[in-house]
Amino acid sequence: MMSVVLVEPEKAGNIGAVARAMKNFDFKDLILINPKADHLSKESMDRASHAKDVLKKAKKADISYLEGFDHIIGTTSKLGSDYNMPRVPITPKQLAEKLSETGKKSRIALLFGRECTGLTNEEIKRCDFIVSIPSSKRYPAMNLSHSVAILLYEIYSAQGKNKIGDIAAPITDIEKKQILKMVDDILDSMEFGTKEKKETQRILWKRMIGKSFMTRREAFALMGFLKKIK
Amino acid sequence: MMSVVLVEPEKAGNIGAVARAMKNFDFKDLILINPKADHLSKESMDRASHAKDVLKKAKKADISYLEGFDHIIGTTSKLGSDYNMPRVPITPKQLAEKLSETGKKSRIALLFGRECTGLTNEEIKRCDFIVSIPSSKRYPAMNLSHSVAILLYEIYSAQGKNKIGDIAAPITDIEKKQILKMVDDILDSMEFGTKEKKETQRILWKRMIGKSFMTRREAFALMGFLKKIK
Repeated sequence: MMSVVLVEPEKAGNIGAVARAMKNFDFKDLILINPKADHLSKESMDRASHAKDVLKKAKKADISYLEGFDHIIGTTSKLGSDYNMPRVPITPKQLAEKLSETGKKSRIALLFGRECTGLTNEEIKRCDFIVSIPSSKRYPAMNLSHSVAILLYEIYSAQGKNKIGDIAAPITDIEKKQILKMVDDILDSMEFGTKEKKETQRILWKRMIGKSFMTRREAFALMGFLKKIK
Repeated sequence: MMSVVLVEPEKAGNIGAVARAMKNFDFKDLILINPKADHLSKESMDRASHAKDVLKKAKKADISYLEGFDHIIGTTSKLGSDYNMPRVPITPKQLAEKLSETGKKSRIALLFGRECTGLTNEEIKRCDFIVSIPSSKRYPAMNLSHSVAILLYEIYSAQGKNKIGDIAAPITDIEKKQILKMVDDILDSMEFGTKEKKETQRILWKRMIGKSFMTRREAFALMGFLKKIK
């Protein structure tokens, strides 16, 4: 189970926004280490929108609370120099891959630092490893709830929950071949002058279907269209 | 070039947060279609943090402004039924892949709808295709700026800018083999009783290095450690 741990968050609005992002990706357990803002204030509740339950169940604790976790993962936008080993990070995609291998029984804490200064060096050292979101060199520091949303999105997606309904099921090779066969038949019945022009059409259709990330629903609709033409 | 287009945004804070997310991922061009809130208000500016320049350069326009774009991409958290073809979406990762193939000269609009109701069916139909962020079935509706942050993060990452500095360069096969050779030499010089126990140690080290997503910097540090033991 993964807990989202905010270390000394300073803004109530951010805590609420974090709660919303958590609920959007099916995470429930929010821990606030010495919060500097009221997570039950109107501002926080407003920003949580339909995730007020996450805020109400959030636990306030001090840093010793981390001792109960099997793995502690830190986050940072400040990358270390060559000699700053504790801040050498992995990417969000690597984190998601790692976690999808980890048993569900492990208790994992995903730590986010203060809005202005992030996690301290001491806190970073306490972590098993560090993750950093690749971002602009000119302005790498992201909003707290944005960082949470991106990491939870990657973790959620890697859990194989990224199927957005059956209607989004991707086209299979069978449908691709059926469509191309139908196009072929249509091309054969048309006047094109040269063989090359026909071949160009075939390639066009192959490319078009290949690049379109077509869903099965769309593929069936296209077949309906081609059948009518025929 | 990609523009972020907000259709009738209702909250000044969200517009500011969108501007910040844009600057975090090196996007600059913000278009506001009939905004219902003031993007230059204090609330918006505060939330933009160091991205106030994005807000100042933002363009207010009406929906006809979209005619100048080569590709219009819509976003939705409301998935269509089987028969609602216009709302059949692709995933953010597919979008990022698609865009990394597209020439830089294309003018692309990434459309985000109103906070409460999203894009209308008419607006959705105008789009070349639709992207949807996989999220919880119980609470799929994300905050506007969170959706923007996640999509821009995916697009930015796919552009090959996701190298978080040279210190995060991943271990190569050469270093892996060097480390395992050093471990082998150390094991050979130790008393382990049986051959099997030595082999177990070898496998442990191979797995440990394999699963650690080690960086080159970390690999060199580990070699230093092993050299000392030897």
